[in-house]
Amino acid sequence: MQTGYFITFEGIDGSGKSTQLKRLAASLAAQGMQPVVTRQPGGTPVGDRIRALLLDSRTERLAAMTELGLMFADRAQSIAEIIGPALTEGRIVLCDRFTDSTEAYQGGGRELGSEVVLQLHATMCGGLKPDLTLLLMPDFDRALARARRRNERNAPKGGNEDRFEREGNAFYRRVFDKYSEIARREPLRVVVVDGDRSIEQIHQSIVQVVEERLRNHGYHMPDRA
Amino acid sequence: MQTGYFITFEGIDGSGKSTQLKRLAASLAAQGMQPVVTRQPGGTPVGDRIRALLLDSRTERLAAMTELGLMFADRAQSIAEIIGPALTEGRIVLCDRFTDSTEAYQGGGRELGSEVVLQLHATMCGGLKPDLTLLLMPDFDRALARARRRNERNAPKGGNEDRFEREGNAFYRRVFDKYSEIARREPLRVVVVDGDRSIEQIHQSIVQVVEERLRNHGYHMPDRA
Repeated sequence: MQTGYFITFEGIDGSGKSTQLKRLAASLAAQGMQPVVTRQPGGTPVGDRIRALLLDSRTERLAAMTELGLMFADRAQSIAEIIGPALTEGRIVLCDRFTDSTEAYQGGGRELGSEVVLQLHATMCGGLKPDLTLLLMPDFDRALARARRRNERNAPKGGNEDRFEREGNAFYRRVFDKYSEIARREPLRVVVVDGDRSIEQIHQSIVQVVEERLRNHGYHMPDRA
Repeated sequence: MQTGYFITFEGIDGSGKSTQLKRLAASLAAQGMQPVVTRQPGGTPVGDRIRALLLDSRTERLAAMTELGLMFADRAQSIAEIIGPALTEGRIVLCDRFTDSTEAYQGGGRELGSEVVLQLHATMCGGLKPDLTLLLMPDFDRALARARRRNERNAPKGGNEDRFEREGNAFYRRVFDKYSEIARREPLRVVVVDGDRSIEQIHQSIVQVVEERLRNHGYHMPDRA
């Protein structure tokens, strides 16, 4: 029986979701709840090898369906090895990206459509849904500019053209729009977090949502004075 | 438009299918038709890396759904990179194992059932079906004994227990039975070849079936006197 609580963080590159996941994990830990923290793709030995394969996509002409299959193979392993057992033990699981990312990036960005992604999720992940998804949605243009700056800082001089140059703004627009569509489709699961505030402000609003949800789920949460 | 002809070889380990595939390829080549020869898993750079991952399954606790996802990722890449383009060019493609193997080994042997395999095939392989499947069916006990002998010859001394010891006869019985079920379900596509004859006799019967099918498909085949 699943007694834990499964929270995923979603958003386009540069939305700040990974920072917020770490802040929430620290905040839950400070209250004595040691959450299980993981990410996709990767997070398991098999998943890390799949992740390496995925990142080689340009050199090896990865077909769109191959990419999808690898992502769901990684996810199935993560569920079998990490997420499933942790939830069964009653733990809180925080996961950086889950199926919504695949729907947004491959379904939306690469224009494979939502249906194939949702079909694979149903077949390969037994339909496991997060209890709560925190979708960080900054202003699109601002997030794109931030991600570009970060990419430029991290790119080796004279290296390959970066991901943004390669994919183009239209790709990221489709990802952004697909995330919006998912949020409209599943308003109870997906909480849209305004990403255009300070890290601390965003963190506080996330803590508020999470504490309320956990309390409703039966966790004992400290009262806020 | 697909104008080529897609032939798959299927059967349990020790059925002799790989030997027969090579013989048929040589025979078609001698008649001036250069078939494209491939195998699954593997056959593409990405597929070879996936194959390596699959073969590491014991050390890395590969979940059943991860294994399935990797197999279909490999297959999707093979279709995109090798099989699809070859068929479009009008070539004959000979493939050592295809989705029937996944249905027999994972669906039957590992008892995941046919449905999940056929669903993944429909989603990830666009439902591509072989035009002809040659299913080598030897007597079960004889094939098992042959495969065991081959395994013992190839096993390093003092090495790990071999695949047969690990899987057990019951596993191979389920694989065998699932192959029989597929043949009954799709009698037009799947031709069952009696594997308890000499390599040359089996080869001759395969050549006869293939030449008739290719002639019906519009290939110019030499007359047999």
